[in-house]
Amino acid sequence: MTAPFPDPRLSLNQATIKHADLATALQVTAEAGLAAIGLWREPVQDVGLAGAARMLADSGLRFSTHCRGGFFTLPAGPAREAALDDNRRAIEETATLAAAGAEGSTAVLVLVAGGLPEGSRDLVGARERVRDAIGALADDARGAGVTLAIEPLHPLYASDRAVVSTLGQALDIAADFDPAVVGVAVDTFHIWWDPQVLDQIARAGREDRIATYQVCDWKTPLAADPLLSRHYPGEGVIDFGVLTRAVRATGYDRDIEVEIFRADVWAADPRAVVRRTAESFAATVSPHLR
Amino acid sequence: MTAPFPDPRLSLNQATIKHADLATALQVTAEAGLAAIGLWREPVQDVGLAGAARMLADSGLRFSTHCRGGFFTLPAGPAREAALDDNRRAIEETATLAAAGAEGSTAVLVLVAGGLPEGSRDLVGARERVRDAIGALADDARGAGVTLAIEPLHPLYASDRAVVSTLGQALDIAADFDPAVVGVAVDTFHIWWDPQVLDQIARAGREDRIATYQVCDWKTPLAADPLLSRHYPGEGVIDFGVLTRAVRATGYDRDIEVEIFRADVWAADPRAVVRRTAESFAATVSPHLR
Repeated sequence: MTAPFPDPRLSLNQATIKHADLATALQVTAEAGLAAIGLWREPVQDVGLAGAARMLADSGLRFSTHCRGGFFTLPAGPAREAALDDNRRAIEETATLAAAGAEGSTAVLVLVAGGLPEGSRDLVGARERVRDAIGALADDARGAGVTLAIEPLHPLYASDRAVVSTLGQALDIAADFDPAVVGVAVDTFHIWWDPQVLDQIARAGREDRIATYQVCDWKTPLAADPLLSRHYPGEGVIDFGVLTRAVRATGYDRDIEVEIFRADVWAADPRAVVRRTAESFAATVSPHLR
Repeated sequence: MTAPFPDPRLSLNQATIKHADLATALQVTAEAGLAAIGLWREPVQDVGLAGAARMLADSGLRFSTHCRGGFFTLPAGPAREAALDDNRRAIEETATLAAAGAEGSTAVLVLVAGGLPEGSRDLVGARERVRDAIGALADDARGAGVTLAIEPLHPLYASDRAVVSTLGQALDIAADFDPAVVGVAVDTFHIWWDPQVLDQIARAGREDRIATYQVCDWKTPLAADPLLSRHYPGEGVIDFGVLTRAVRATGYDRDIEVEIFRADVWAADPRAVVRRTAESFAATVSPHLR
């Protein structure tokens, strides 16, 4: 059976067309025939939350995730409190946007844990502070109807971006909380290498924790800035069949985002990027969804 | 209690002074007062195995590891057979050098698994071939009295250097074999980020698998070539206290190598590099050994 094109479950993560403003991002995504989008805080704040919600509603697109909260590893003090307050604003933004999106929108805030504080080598302590911060935000998230999605990042980023490095670790943190309030983000780029990945995807399903599934590809040599080293699905070494079937087997049936950070993708015409995103998704992910 | 300097358990891995030939490497290591060295195949082969063994014996140094075998992920065929034959030569080299080194030398051949074959996305299959290759070499290693040390490499290298990415995965592979024949290399650079690292070090001890303990530091931003992004202990974010005490708690009491791949270290005077290696080891590792 041929899948419809673009795949109805494909959501464009706005970071893939980073330099487009919100109006442009919504327009090119809808014009390309996609049904959903994941947004980032900065372009939403550029137009104001109320305006962003109206624009999203007018676009007819579903809202799949809000990116992103987190940065939870600071020790107690004003900077940590400011980070928590900023996360509370992100929770409110997520709820507002999810309510404004088309039917099937999900109120999911993606959390990137944060790296080691400057000068610190206390990885265990930093990881404990992530758990504590999520605990501090759980009631806010529950009250807003928002699911916090802990995103394990590739161990490449363990020191400076995210001390949460594996899906198993993210699930261990989430286990302290209600699955409606705390889940995980399953992003192929970050977890494809993990010898335990299939077991942990199955576990995430059993524990009802998959808040979002995101896809992009891994390829070496890495870009000089390894943050900007993501590729369209199919360009690299990740087996999207194995991972997508594992996610499907859990019963996950919501939107799937493509999120690519790469300089040459950002420099390209956003219409071309959206088209290529839809094509790469159709070739690599769609066949494993049905 | 003040540790002696240089630490009697410090071994210089020859790759740290990559551009020194074998004679120079042995000389500067011994002159600096170190008691042990780990060698690499190419500089040994440059002088011939018999000559290298004589030079090593004359140096009075212990031999801690031979680097390296592996590259096991090719599918069946002549290239894979050639790789296995080359590993058999490496096993013989290891046995010869260990016999030539001073008392306390260990016959340990470090194995780097290899990455995905060109064009392949079959990570599970590549990992199975690593296990199969070790099985094909186990009798050779046993006959030569050599321990094969599976080295998990940081997941950063999973696609192009080593499909064995965690200590737990290396131990799972080793579990099929006698601990005298197959162990693991515990290298701080590769495993420091792992949420399971302390449990897996303890497991490695219980299962008698720690064939070598190697130290160097992780720091971002990574070098443009991430293979050359290792630092002297203490320059980065790794907590050598936590990891070294965990290794010590297993009863591991043999040599500890410092292995640094970095362009500016390689460009420096090898005498200065050995001195700085000894100083950084004394500051970061020695306090946790006694």
